[in-house]
Amino acid sequence: MPGNSQRRRPLWLDADEQALGVIDQRRLPHQFVTLSLKTVDDVIHAIREMVVRGAPLIGATAAYGMWLAATNSMGHAPDPDHFRQEALRLKASRPTAINLAWAVDRVLGRMETASTAQVAVDLARHEADAVTREEIENCRRIGEFGRPIIEELSRANDGRTVHVLTHCNAGWLACIEHGTATAPIYAAFDRGIDVHVWVDETRPLNQGARLTAWELAERGVRHTVIADNAGGHLMQHGMVDLVIVGSDRTTANGDVANKIGTYLKALAAKDNGVPFYVALPSSTFDWSLRDGVADIPIEERNPEEVRWVQGWEGEGPVRVRICPEKSPAANFAFDVTPGHLVTGLITERGVCRATAADIRRLFADKIKTIC
Amino acid sequence: MPGNSQRRRPLWLDADEQALGVIDQRRLPHQFVTLSLKTVDDVIHAIREMVVRGAPLIGATAAYGMWLAATNSMGHAPDPDHFRQEALRLKASRPTAINLAWAVDRVLGRMETASTAQVAVDLARHEADAVTREEIENCRRIGEFGRPIIEELSRANDGRTVHVLTHCNAGWLACIEHGTATAPIYAAFDRGIDVHVWVDETRPLNQGARLTAWELAERGVRHTVIADNAGGHLMQHGMVDLVIVGSDRTTANGDVANKIGTYLKALAAKDNGVPFYVALPSSTFDWSLRDGVADIPIEERNPEEVRWVQGWEGEGPVRVRICPEKSPAANFAFDVTPGHLVTGLITERGVCRATAADIRRLFADKIKTIC
Repeated sequence: MPGNSQRRRPLWLDADEQALGVIDQRRLPHQFVTLSLKTVDDVIHAIREMVVRGAPLIGATAAYGMWLAATNSMGHAPDPDHFRQEALRLKASRPTAINLAWAVDRVLGRMETASTAQVAVDLARHEADAVTREEIENCRRIGEFGRPIIEELSRANDGRTVHVLTHCNAGWLACIEHGTATAPIYAAFDRGIDVHVWVDETRPLNQGARLTAWELAERGVRHTVIADNAGGHLMQHGMVDLVIVGSDRTTANGDVANKIGTYLKALAAKDNGVPFYVALPSSTFDWSLRDGVADIPIEERNPEEVRWVQGWEGEGPVRVRICPEKSPAANFAFDVTPGHLVTGLITERGVCRATAADIRRLFADKIKTIC
Repeated sequence: MPGNSQRRRPLWLDADEQALGVIDQRRLPHQFVTLSLKTVDDVIHAIREMVVRGAPLIGATAAYGMWLAATNSMGHAPDPDHFRQEALRLKASRPTAINLAWAVDRVLGRMETASTAQVAVDLARHEADAVTREEIENCRRIGEFGRPIIEELSRANDGRTVHVLTHCNAGWLACIEHGTATAPIYAAFDRGIDVHVWVDETRPLNQGARLTAWELAERGVRHTVIADNAGGHLMQHGMVDLVIVGSDRTTANGDVANKIGTYLKALAAKDNGVPFYVALPSSTFDWSLRDGVADIPIEERNPEEVRWVQGWEGEGPVRVRICPEKSPAANFAFDVTPGHLVTGLITERGVCRATAADIRRLFADKIKTIC
């Protein structure tokens, strides 16, 4: 489903159902370019290079990666070792988002029962479709559970604008439909609530300025791009009613890994009494971890992403260096916000506090299956 | 004194002493370009467009702006009303840095006593020279008082690297010589302390990535450029021993206005037990204010500075747009860090806590003159 028809999605099966179509998110907002992924290597490259990004979308893309592993094995008997090998490669493409391993293992689990190559293809396709469908439904429900938070602020405000700050992109581009952090915003907007979004630029890759701003503009939601440095000042001056962000991995205790810089906004929210919510489907929980700061692996990416900024000039995309030629840089992609800074987690089962007990109350069945 | 001879300065009198020479700091680190300011309008333009920036340098530049007001009035009897008018225009060029008003008023005070145009020129020149000389000496002393903080951390570390994080540029480019935040770093480095600096990029104008990285590279101080988002993560993982920043205005209670985003780093430092110091000459105190968040005027600059990033590509400077064409932006240039988040103020008279009582103890004489 290319992006110009119906409701856009960042992921679809090509018309002949032989390849996975994706929006090349590195090119947005300046160019709308789609790519066709035909092999596991294509998928790994797309995830690693952030053609696709965002925890739920990485999960769904990797799920279809397993389907491509199966389609590319047609003509041989299904080889569980090969599928396990491909699953390992896919899971290693990026380290922080837990949805990736969750989705790949889920599809692999189905494929291992396949008696023929065609059955492996069908099972993989079926399971990847199910992952995708469920994540869309999870995001829709996150929107429904999160919307009342914004409506309540609107009422308390006598209907005046509710100002929401978000960091990075946890919109439909990151999640197939609705988004996680954006789902409550879109749901409130669709109900006529006057909402305005402060969009953190989100250096180094500017997913806020590039992707969130683009999504919001397309939907007609009022928004303002700000430097990542600005949120604290806005909160000190009563210009932010609510922060909502997504997550790449959340521990059983409620510690939240998300795009680097999220923790700084959580500190500012706490210091100024601004509610700080994290929106996530249950696929983003890592039930095996408790202490997020100590235990969540944080990806370190190429420092060139910090030393250069990609943008648009005149008629084309241009990358400019923003520091001295020989100055080194470091590029940590995520940080961890301790649960005590989080007002609430907005999940597909409702809103809960970011504590072990509250999370367990909502997700006891899921926790049991891994313990 | 152009930049390639001796110890560089960002401000000098041209050889014929008819104009003020400055480094065009917008072009660094990619190009070393100097400009010659001949009129008050030139000076106002240079301050407003951030050809020169940094509170102490803005003060010194504006002081020489008053000297240019005098030189350009030669041939008439000195007109105090005209000088006051020019002083008002200079003081209005940027709103947050208090050094600007302090330096201009100081030179104006001397000029008002002039009986002839030549005397006005001489008095203005004398006072602007004095402002500059004193600010250099203040920065040198800030280095001497701040150096033991770094030496102590080095000793506690068994001589291993001391990691200092800084935000924006409070180096010699901002201060004529030594810098404020960088003065203790340079002083420790000169004594052979193993020091490494985390350089916040400092969007939107990237004074960290452009100017601080350049200064440190020129001096041979090890440094690493990071996104503004990264500092919290580094502090959570014990990778920052100390934060030192400058200030554009500090209240009598110790609330510190500095480049937007400073407050977020102060919160992270507090949360992780990392010492957070502010280095400033006494010209940066605003003795008339107490509550910084409520009372310090925060400059709002052109949103295009957020929507575009200036950098270098191939053979020349290029500006790239980093958000959708129609997405608006907001550009607050400073924020205020409440004194209770500040471990200490490093001044030319020593280090004190950021409290009204401790500040008064060091600067009783200066406070008295305005109360």
